[in-house]
Amino acid sequence: MTRTPIPRFEDNYTEQAAQSRRDFLAEQTGASFEHTGTYSLPPESLKSNTENFIGVVQMPVGVAGPVLIHGEHAQGWFYVPLATTEGTLVASYSRGMRMVSESGGVKVTVAEEFMQRAPLFEFDDARAALRFLKWAEENLSNIKAEAEKTTGFGKLVHIQTWQVARMVYTRFNYTTGDAAGQNMCGKATHAACQWILKNSPEAISYFALSGAIETDKKHSHMNLLHSRGKRVIAEATIKREVLQRLARTTPETIFKQRQRSAIGAQLAGSAYSGPHSANGIAALFIATGQDEANVVESHAGMVFMDITADGDLYFSVTLPSVICATKGGGTGLATQAECLKMLGCEGTGKARKLAEIVGATVLAGDLSLLSAILADEWVSSHDAYGRNR
Amino acid sequence: MTRTPIPRFEDNYTEQAAQSRRDFLAEQTGASFEHTGTYSLPPESLKSNTENFIGVVQMPVGVAGPVLIHGEHAQGWFYVPLATTEGTLVASYSRGMRMVSESGGVKVTVAEEFMQRAPLFEFDDARAALRFLKWAEENLSNIKAEAEKTTGFGKLVHIQTWQVARMVYTRFNYTTGDAAGQNMCGKATHAACQWILKNSPEAISYFALSGAIETDKKHSHMNLLHSRGKRVIAEATIKREVLQRLARTTPETIFKQRQRSAIGAQLAGSAYSGPHSANGIAALFIATGQDEANVVESHAGMVFMDITADGDLYFSVTLPSVICATKGGGTGLATQAECLKMLGCEGTGKARKLAEIVGATVLAGDLSLLSAILADEWVSSHDAYGRNR
Amino acid sequence: MTRTPIPRFEDNYTEQAAQSRRDFLAEQTGASFEHTGTYSLPPESLKSNTENFIGVVQMPVGVAGPVLIHGEHAQGWFYVPLATTEGTLVASYSRGMRMVSESGGVKVTVAEEFMQRAPLFEFDDARAALRFLKWAEENLSNIKAEAEKTTGFGKLVHIQTWQVARMVYTRFNYTTGDAAGQNMCGKATHAACQWILKNSPEAISYFALSGAIETDKKHSHMNLLHSRGKRVIAEATIKREVLQRLARTTPETIFKQRQRSAIGAQLAGSAYSGPHSANGIAALFIATGQDEANVVESHAGMVFMDITADGDLYFSVTLPSVICATKGGGTGLATQAECLKMLGCEGTGKARKLAEIVGATVLAGDLSLLSAILADEWVSSHDAYGRNR
Amino acid sequence: MTRTPIPRFEDNYTEQAAQSRRDFLAEQTGASFEHTGTYSLPPESLKSNTENFIGVVQMPVGVAGPVLIHGEHAQGWFYVPLATTEGTLVASYSRGMRMVSESGGVKVTVAEEFMQRAPLFEFDDARAALRFLKWAEENLSNIKAEAEKTTGFGKLVHIQTWQVARMVYTRFNYTTGDAAGQNMCGKATHAACQWILKNSPEAISYFALSGAIETDKKHSHMNLLHSRGKRVIAEATIKREVLQRLARTTPETIFKQRQRSAIGAQLAGSAYSGPHSANGIAALFIATGQDEANVVESHAGMVFMDITADGDLYFSVTLPSVICATKGGGTGLATQAECLKMLGCEGTGKARKLAEIVGATVLAGDLSLLSAILADEWVSSHDAYGRNR
Repeated sequence: MTRTPIPRFEDNYTEQAAQSRRDFLAEQTGASFEHTGTYSLPPESLKSNTENFIGVVQMPVGVAGPVLIHGEHAQGWFYVPLATTEGTLVASYSRGMRMVSESGGVKVTVAEEFMQRAPLFEFDDARAALRFLKWAEENLSNIKAEAEKTTGFGKLVHIQTWQVARMVYTRFNYTTGDAAGQNMCGKATHAACQWILKNSPEAISYFALSGAIETDKKHSHMNLLHSRGKRVIAEATIKREVLQRLARTTPETIFKQRQRSAIGAQLAGSAYSGPHSANGIAALFIATGQDEANVVESHAGMVFMDITADGDLYFSVTLPSVICATKGGGTGLATQAECLKMLGCEGTGKARKLAEIVGATVLAGDLSLLSAILADEWVSSHDAYGRNR
Repeated sequence: MTRTPIPRFEDNYTEQAAQSRRDFLAEQTGASFEHTGTYSLPPESLKSNTENFIGVVQMPVGVAGPVLIHGEHAQGWFYVPLATTEGTLVASYSRGMRMVSESGGVKVTVAEEFMQRAPLFEFDDARAALRFLKWAEENLSNIKAEAEKTTGFGKLVHIQTWQVARMVYTRFNYTTGDAAGQNMCGKATHAACQWILKNSPEAISYFALSGAIETDKKHSHMNLLHSRGKRVIAEATIKREVLQRLARTTPETIFKQRQRSAIGAQLAGSAYSGPHSANGIAALFIATGQDEANVVESHAGMVFMDITADGDLYFSVTLPSVICATKGGGTGLATQAECLKMLGCEGTGKARKLAEIVGATVLAGDLSLLSAILADEWVSSHDAYGRNR
Repeated sequence: MTRTPIPRFEDNYTEQAAQSRRDFLAEQTGASFEHTGTYSLPPESLKSNTENFIGVVQMPVGVAGPVLIHGEHAQGWFYVPLATTEGTLVASYSRGMRMVSESGGVKVTVAEEFMQRAPLFEFDDARAALRFLKWAEENLSNIKAEAEKTTGFGKLVHIQTWQVARMVYTRFNYTTGDAAGQNMCGKATHAACQWILKNSPEAISYFALSGAIETDKKHSHMNLLHSRGKRVIAEATIKREVLQRLARTTPETIFKQRQRSAIGAQLAGSAYSGPHSANGIAALFIATGQDEANVVESHAGMVFMDITADGDLYFSVTLPSVICATKGGGTGLATQAECLKMLGCEGTGKARKLAEIVGATVLAGDLSLLSAILADEWVSSHDAYGRNR
Repeated sequence: MTRTPIPRFEDNYTEQAAQSRRDFLAEQTGASFEHTGTYSLPPESLKSNTENFIGVVQMPVGVAGPVLIHGEHAQGWFYVPLATTEGTLVASYSRGMRMVSESGGVKVTVAEEFMQRAPLFEFDDARAALRFLKWAEENLSNIKAEAEKTTGFGKLVHIQTWQVARMVYTRFNYTTGDAAGQNMCGKATHAACQWILKNSPEAISYFALSGAIETDKKHSHMNLLHSRGKRVIAEATIKREVLQRLARTTPETIFKQRQRSAIGAQLAGSAYSGPHSANGIAALFIATGQDEANVVESHAGMVFMDITADGDLYFSVTLPSVICATKGGGTGLATQAECLKMLGCEGTGKARKLAEIVGATVLAGDLSLLSAILADEWVSSHDAYGRNR
């Protein structure tokens, strides 16, 4: 059995190259690419997005909402595009959005934002590492300057450090404007580290651009504590009357279930203590050209609720590491840009607005699923919509 | 400001309904849907996949590989479709696949598989809960029978239980054939619980179909321990010569970095101890119609490596909760089915084969990124490919 | 600088040897041992408890209670000896015991019990490991028999297994009668593994008696889930009137604080979600001759509370890994035996009774501290009692 | 059944009161207190250490070492008092100390130190909480001044904050001189919060002196990251020759086992990744009058090792939250003070020295146990010494 390489071309980003690769794969695998080969994206537009392009996956988009949002940036009614293949998901989020909106809307706050790269430095012993830490603190302005030379938008806000044995694990924390900024942080940190490597008075016996504690593309407790992306907090006071009318449940019923689910979440060691943040985030991320792998960091968080003096339900979702962008990545692709436009989130100055919409969406979806579980309609609604599983 | 609802139609799954919704949204939001409205999926085919369908997101697919896999089910060379908008990702996975294949290929094993629903039962006190547990154990065959009545494929293999205060948290563990099976488990467990509620000799003061410890759509330590989906183990022995030729590095260099990254992963409390499982999983999941939110469960796991007596690099990836299917969900959609076909994974009896391909892909991608970080080409390669971020 | 070894004697366990060591240390360090040398324990009684004996630490014992316990084994009023040097601790536990008792007492249940040793087996690849697992399951009765040959009390109840890469991590779960049983499990597992090493049809490339997942002398999430020692659940319904009279607080006030502390515990990743299990456990363990290092496993757990229909406070503590014994270790030493006797827990058949007393003590102490925090008397009471810190 | 209260006296801290309580308990429980009643501690000296004093537990002390330490404060040979009832423990630590010392000694570094109290503030919504955070940052010097008014030693170094929903969870980080400082921090933070409550421009809807994230008397991931007590790092390079001569093993054998135990620790979610920090810490804490419950925080940490270019074993232990004191608590009691004196750690300016001795002790004990496990002498040595379990 020998390897037959995928054909390469002088210009890999032409329709002809794409067609040739499809032909090659059809021959090698027996598959046909009639649908995958149907697209309106010009292959030339994908040079920063993929390699060995063969076509597209058509991911169906349903629209949920509208939802009434009171963000600092997102204000008013929003129709939310969700790219998903899971039946009932759009319907359920829509119902939650209605419950939220009829209760007066959802307030969303972006409490902080950072993106990281996490270089590692190793020394002869722990005491040398400690001396290095003091030196680095004293030279922070130089380190900042070197990092920021490489980028027009990125700002190195602060550096966190942890010492283990003779190693220093760091997190360089940046703000990155409207881009998610992983690469921006990588380049800036690389530059800063070159300066450190040249100037450190302590001999650095080992260096790596990542010591793994930025936990890129991974959930971590670190990111629950020290936000990677945006720390998004969504809050709504759901009226008792709305819960009863739209979901046949009460604040007390939901509260009681959450108390017990919180124990379950602790027992399980769950990254998220609410019902299903990942569903809404994944669907909205794919629709708007976010890096789909960042769902793993973004889905973590905490649900907190309480019953108000008026007998309504205060319901909140805290998502400490929502990584989203309105520039770069897939945000400029044709369909994704249309979905961003539909949210009024295209281009510069819109990343926080998009993050607020993410928060509102997650809250609505959690509220809806919680209600469904309690009204015992969960199994039956999946039966009605999601028949083939 | 008032809410304008999304229009609904007698038949919501026609092209006409989709077009009307696009027109409505264009008017409401000012967006246009030229590209989102370009698709070959018949809206009628989406009844189990979405609601309020307005069109598709075109997610570019690049092909990586081929990779030589020695699974129990996946055997031979595979071209792997990756749906992504992150530049360099396909190129990086391809390089890893070449490194793995030139070293003799990757061996993949599915060690176990389960899908869960996790009902909660509450009693008057802990002692009543304990008596209930004894009764449930004695009546396991009845409970199993009730659950399995609801499904042709699902088998209730075992029930795990945890007692906290007067509550019993359970995990009903099923095998579900080629479907991911979340809904199948939901229905079966619902039926089993109806029987329990009717027959329990202990008064059940509270019941919920979920006590949250199946941690559906959430990473959890529980799922690291007690597999949700398939426990996939990929192993390869990467030849020293291959590492040097293709990645300008050595087994010792990679090993040294991993030692330190493992400390970083512990410090951070990371869900995955390797570099970036989520990238490959998300891209392959979207291409093949998996539930994209399941990336959060699937990305968790552990990397283990060692240097062999011959001086090569034993490299392994253990993914305890890979949730993938070749039936149901989005697997039957036109483009997704083509991608599955390309892998020889269409339809019945193929879910384990697909899981093996997931494992092989993650291992290849981790190997490639590790090599890139060490050869200091990480920042520069993102510069070359992923320019716009 | 050279090393001067501690003198050794023909019989190390005589008073003469102890005195000689004290003289030696006085000379080497300038310390005197007037008090350390004051004890009534015969040095000859310490052959299984220490080496290089030089005397004793006199740890003051205060008595808390009495507390009314409704266990399966501990029934009635108990005076609880607490060995501690932390001022206010005994007073605070006593107050909690009064609150609990005036509300009708505390119900305690031991839900399960196991002690573990966790051998590790490694194979050529993951598939061989999987075959080994099948073989081991088929040969469980042989493995059990070999293990149990080494002990009169220990029973090997079940073996849990986790596969990572080509390794199999196991937990051999025993019941161990009234002993804590760590050494008993070590010996039994050693014997069972000798049989496995001899009989396994798969080549075992590496073996260790511990792969670290019994997490002996360490807190772990594993032990939260899979009890090490006894899973102890204490429950009490604290009367509203009692809370008001004795602690100037209400069920609602305590509940509100707990809701917020539970979020704090999740944020922090706490091993215990209540206020201070470790205080009572450490003090009771030292008083009764338990292995003091086992406080780290024993202190983990979960607090769950609710307000009853009558407006009282249901308050519970679940401690999944309480490791305690009434035989072996320090339980037979003169002072420790007196403290056990005071609890009616001396000797055979009493380990569960002691575990119930531990559970009742923790609940009382948590209740008291919670009330103190809320009544804002926390700082001032430490001022009154624990002046010198 | 009625409650018979423990007798109280005009002066509770006299020998007569102690004797009366013993008589009372003898009558109530049938126990005798011959040994518990034998002590040289004057009851009057215990006013800050216990209540309802009835006598002492005599905890046997064995001496381990000597061990050669190169700390910043602890320099030279130390004989280490270990209060324990676990046979083999002193012998095992002694052996490790010999291995370490014959390899040149152990270097110990205190990398940072903090003690915390963690008040919680709640507001009308997340946005008000965010405004409060900005205000608090601007008023840090006032807050510091208020806190430090209450204490001669404590310094409020920095305040960490985390926002969840509308709540702000804080950690007030202090240095506390030679005291452990929990109460000092409680008082200072209480004072600072009174000022905040009076001056905050945002309405504070709920306040608690603890929101649970200082995780007092509890292990937490928070404390692994953000040191509570002293971050102690012990390092030693163990000579190959010493390992072979004293422990019949090699650097490679130990390294191989550790690689696999690290995977076990990750799987288990262990608070400590080495063999048994808690044993040495508990025994040394009890001997020197530390708060025995602080073992739970102090035992957490990470082991990192590597093989040097010369083929020796670099072995390190990082303990992020060692809570120890040489003033306050039990440090002034007669026997405990003798043990501190034996270490040259009595009184002012000695807390860091004691922390270094803790680090050296843990490293020695881990090295010894690792060697024992590998030389398969683990089970047999417990048989020889710890016979009765």
